Amino acid sequence: MKKVAILMGSDSDLPVVRPAADVLRDYGVPVEVRVMSAHRTPEAVRDFVSAARENGFGVLIAAAGKAAHLAGAVAAQTTLPVIGIPVKSSTLDGLDALLSTVQMPSGIPVATVAIDGAKNAGLLAVQILAIQDETLAGKLSQARADMRDEIVRKDAALQAELNK
Amino acid sequence: MKKVAILMGSDSDLPVVRPAADVLRDYGVPVEVRVMSAHRTPEAVRDFVSAARENGFGVLIAAAGKAAHLAGAVAAQTTLPVIGIPVKSSTLDGLDALLSTVQMPSGIPVATVAIDGAKNAGLLAVQILAIQDETLAGKLSQARADMRDEIVRKDAALQAELNK
Amino acid sequence: MKKVAILMGSDSDLPVVRPAADVLRDYGVPVEVRVMSAHRTPEAVRDFVSAARENGFGVLIAAAGKAAHLAGAVAAQTTLPVIGIPVKSSTLDGLDALLSTVQMPSGIPVATVAIDGAKNAGLLAVQILAIQDETLAGKLSQARADMRDEIVRKDAALQAELNK
Amino acid sequence: MKKVAILMGSDSDLPVVRPAADVLRDYGVPVEVRVMSAHRTPEAVRDFVSAARENGFGVLIAAAGKAAHLAGAVAAQTTLPVIGIPVKSSTLDGLDALLSTVQMPSGIPVATVAIDGAKNAGLLAVQILAIQDETLAGKLSQARADMRDEIVRKDAALQAELNK
Amino acid sequence: MKKVAILMGSDSDLPVVRPAADVLRDYGVPVEVRVMSAHRTPEAVRDFVSAARENGFGVLIAAAGKAAHLAGAVAAQTTLPVIGIPVKSSTLDGLDALLSTVQMPSGIPVATVAIDGAKNAGLLAVQILAIQDETLAGKLSQARADMRDEIVRKDAALQAELNK
Amino acid sequence: MKKVAILMGSDSDLPVVRPAADVLRDYGVPVEVRVMSAHRTPEAVRDFVSAARENGFGVLIAAAGKAAHLAGAVAAQTTLPVIGIPVKSSTLDGLDALLSTVQMPSGIPVATVAIDGAKNAGLLAVQILAIQDETLAGKLSQARADMRDEIVRKDAALQAELNK
Amino acid sequence: MKKVAILMGSDSDLPVVRPAADVLRDYGVPVEVRVMSAHRTPEAVRDFVSAARENGFGVLIAAAGKAAHLAGAVAAQTTLPVIGIPVKSSTLDGLDALLSTVQMPSGIPVATVAIDGAKNAGLLAVQILAIQDETLAGKLSQARADMRDEIVRKDAALQAELNK
Amino acid sequence: MKKVAILMGSDSDLPVVRPAADVLRDYGVPVEVRVMSAHRTPEAVRDFVSAARENGFGVLIAAAGKAAHLAGAVAAQTTLPVIGIPVKSSTLDGLDALLSTVQMPSGIPVATVAIDGAKNAGLLAVQILAIQDETLAGKLSQARADMRDEIVRKDAALQAELNK
Repeated sequence: MKKVAILMGSDSDLPVVRPAADVLRDYGVPVEVRVMSAHRTPEAVRDFVSAARENGFGVLIAAAGKAAHLAGAVAAQTTLPVIGIPVKSSTLDGLDALLSTVQMPSGIPVATVAIDGAKNAGLLAVQILAIQDETLAGKLSQARADMRDEIVRKDAALQAELNK
Repeated sequence: MKKVAILMGSDSDLPVVRPAADVLRDYGVPVEVRVMSAHRTPEAVRDFVSAARENGFGVLIAAAGKAAHLAGAVAAQTTLPVIGIPVKSSTLDGLDALLSTVQMPSGIPVATVAIDGAKNAGLLAVQILAIQDETLAGKLSQARADMRDEIVRKDAALQAELNK
Repeated sequence: MKKVAILMGSDSDLPVVRPAADVLRDYGVPVEVRVMSAHRTPEAVRDFVSAARENGFGVLIAAAGKAAHLAGAVAAQTTLPVIGIPVKSSTLDGLDALLSTVQMPSGIPVATVAIDGAKNAGLLAVQILAIQDETLAGKLSQARADMRDEIVRKDAALQAELNK
Repeated sequence: MKKVAILMGSDSDLPVVRPAADVLRDYGVPVEVRVMSAHRTPEAVRDFVSAARENGFGVLIAAAGKAAHLAGAVAAQTTLPVIGIPVKSSTLDGLDALLSTVQMPSGIPVATVAIDGAKNAGLLAVQILAIQDETLAGKLSQARADMRDEIVRKDAALQAELNK
Repeated sequence: MKKVAILMGSDSDLPVVRPAADVLRDYGVPVEVRVMSAHRTPEAVRDFVSAARENGFGVLIAAAGKAAHLAGAVAAQTTLPVIGIPVKSSTLDGLDALLSTVQMPSGIPVATVAIDGAKNAGLLAVQILAIQDETLAGKLSQARADMRDEIVRKDAALQAELNK
Repeated sequence: MKKVAILMGSDSDLPVVRPAADVLRDYGVPVEVRVMSAHRTPEAVRDFVSAARENGFGVLIAAAGKAAHLAGAVAAQTTLPVIGIPVKSSTLDGLDALLSTVQMPSGIPVATVAIDGAKNAGLLAVQILAIQDETLAGKLSQARADMRDEIVRKDAALQAELNK
Repeated sequence: MKKVAILMGSDSDLPVVRPAADVLRDYGVPVEVRVMSAHRTPEAVRDFVSAARENGFGVLIAAAGKAAHLAGAVAAQTTLPVIGIPVKSSTLDGLDALLSTVQMPSGIPVATVAIDGAKNAGLLAVQILAIQDETLAGKLSQARADMRDEIVRKDAALQAELNK
Repeated sequence: MKKVAILMGSDSDLPVVRPAADVLRDYGVPVEVRVMSAHRTPEAVRDFVSAARENGFGVLIAAAGKAAHLAGAVAAQTTLPVIGIPVKSSTLDGLDALLSTVQMPSGIPVATVAIDGAKNAGLLAVQILAIQDETLAGKLSQARADMRDEIVRKDAALQAELNK
């Protein structure tokens, strides 16, 4: 199976990013988590990313805050799909990271998820890998069913409590 | 090869969405363009999307403006990867469509591209399909090289003109 | 009397939504509170909403945060009036939920109240039901008078305290 | 049948507001269109609105731009449901009118539709009146079906054109 | 001397508004603080404001949050200068109150100060009254000099501490 | 009577600012219009403003766009009331000018009107001067009455046209 | 004298960027204008920028729109001062480019000027080079004086025209 | 070596601003920290700034919040490069300060860094002084290398911990 890499600009982003890795592990997708910065270690980004396809990676996830260039810098070095997670920081409530991640120029797409949306970034990577993988696709369907059942149970519990 | 579907909420979005179809055709990816609305034809969306995987689709692209729910409504009905194109309308400069598309809740990701970023939506779909397809991957690399060469030529032309 | 349903995408929204139910109960309007998600249980939403009119509901209230599609998804399945409550979440201060709820396309209106404005959602439902219901209308007038009197009392108290 | 009033702060808003009146007339709902300003003719607003229920009105629609106070000023004078249309003006792209209309304090709701969303304001009024009116409810269902059929036709036309 | 009235929509706004009253008292300007709501007690607002000039008021200050209509509603009832204080509430960081206060239509100005800028609202009222009042004008000049001296002292203290 | 000065940072702002001068002349208030820039001619601003009170000015109006510092720079040099007009420029739709004008620090208020709200700036200056001037106050009341009558006439005309 | 390089991501940005080059030429500063893209030709950026200091450049200017990464990508490859020009594009009025340019992480500053502020970018580069260059400093002072004189002349002309 | 001055509008900004001074001291650049206000002590600003070049300063840094005029007021009095630090305050999350600092008119640039970006302001000043100073340039390169090494170490540590 193709691997997924999760890159973050600073190890302080780990609490936000960790759910992406957790999701991937839950699905049995091999994942590598790396600290690399578009601005502080551009060579490391270039070296890792430009070799990512031949090193067995299928999807790259990049998380960054503020002027969040990491996902774009990654996307500039590969034609693998790149998922961007805008990270909320202490000012502007994540809007800067969102716009810096999603408003990419023609030719270099970044698949952007919600601000601090690491879990969905992981899931999206699984969905991408599951296009050609029946087992993964089956697990995704099962998870949707579980999620649905959990809401149905919560609905029942709430009605029991509120609507007497 | 897996097919790609492009859904739009209104046929008036066609001029914005067309570059996505053009890119896919340029890469030889089979593409189906459909008009369906999350709010006006929810059953059509459900029927089409819930059968998309078995009908040979690999990626779904959805474009909508204002309270742009289409991509989310599509993502709710499939575990295939869904790409969302926020479409700028006459008020708020596309911000409403962007937030309505990208800020999805945990469990149902939408891979969002830039406002009116249809070309990148098409390219992202190609990148996703190219993970396991050497030929597509090769074409993507070639396109990057061509894009690079074009900028180098424009740079040379500009220097010739400006920096005499 | 017609019933009112309050739908929320997650039971974690209950603290925000509860004032809507409280208002309705205060006015003696029968209310049903349900957990249903536009994205995670779309079939449950469709089944409940498409049968709502024949099941005796007159108004539907939907609360959701982030890319808040629930009210729109509800409105797509019924011609009953739908009231949307945008819920503030951890990023963007509720702006995403507001725009996702209010900027609906032509043909499918959502009656949107303020961010986290559940009490007003409940009141608006009462006002709608009171158009043809003299008793409810009388209670609404009385509540306005009480509210006015309370402010007049607070004004008097403040003047006694501050303007000596 | 209850009447609907459409109030606008300035007759220059007529082109934006007219679709609300058109929708109401299409549904056979008696409608009165008035020019009244929260700031320039507050007495006219008060006199008209405070007598609206006894004069046979069931729903009031108010449209205003910039610091759009009209809907709120109307809502302060009646317990009838009030629908607010935020009108885009020459600066800030309608955001000021939207926030001024929707962010109402507890106790005085305004049912807000999209910026320049007059057609939906009219439809919402019809939906409110249709709760207790089978004929109107039937027309609304028919209109939804027509709308659905139109999109299905457009979808077919587009496929015929694009997907050869 | 003309009096100044400070109106607030809710007594919960008192902590934000109090500095306006404090400034006015410091300058010896007679001040009356009132709780009145544009939406909940519109008659009280109208009665107080329309008689304000003949009752000896020279300037009116109004503070409100969210869809902050109070200053505009006051301005609609008088040709005295009206100062608006937008109050930050739990969502949107005060932007809604600012736009609802400042974006007034032609003909009905509101002199808007910063979000939560009650002290400046009080000062502005003093400045207005001081146009024709040498004593007040002298006190204002003295206060500016004091403010300047305080900064100069703080600058000296900081340099002593930091620039050794 | 006290004079009013209107300062603008660039003579290109004249079309936006002119309504302020027109209003003042209509009311018979002596007005002086000047081009001065907070950044390009700070000495001219300081010299003019610091002498304004003794030169017979009662109110100063300042208009500027983008990082609109002019009103603040004027307010820093006088204790006369200063009215700020934020001017919309080619980017950001006037939001930058609004925030730069209104968000003044404690101690130095600027009475801010709407973006491009020059007419209201002029009116506010008249209102300020009218506190102690019965004649001006009378003209303001008359103008309000005329404005009210005009809207009543437009309302009647519209009803004649639309509500047949 | 040190040279200044102006980099833009696309030659379509030339009309916006040209004033930067014009200013530099007016001051006699040698300037090189290049088309290079952070995302499309990252190697060209790296090669040019990492050698810029030894090739005699003193300041680098970078202009880009949307998710404007160019200035940051340049700054990541050099310790020369980098000036960023956010370029307005067809959506979001330049806010995306501004935030993507200015909100840089600690360690990699970008000196950001106004949206479309190319002239100021050029001037800032001159100011930086003028710290150690008496001749340039003198020209800058002269330009300020000329600018001041021009405003004074315009002020006089306007007064002649308006204040008769 | 040229000195750097750091100006702040209030000593309460010191915690935000201090990293700028720390960086400069780390690089051995002489630094002077001053409290001066564009609005409260404009003369102090003018006197200090207009003499800054002849007093041996090479770069001026100004920090301010809300309607942050200080950097612009400084830039108006000198042709030295001026770096602006927008400071986040209690409302609007720093957006007001950012726009008030960066959106300067043509002719008077301010080199703006991120909201609360004091460390980068200090670094940018060092970079500017290092254009002609080999020793400083060497230190900057060393700091970049150290920063890179630290990230590489953190990456290794994280991989050791996470990717077992």
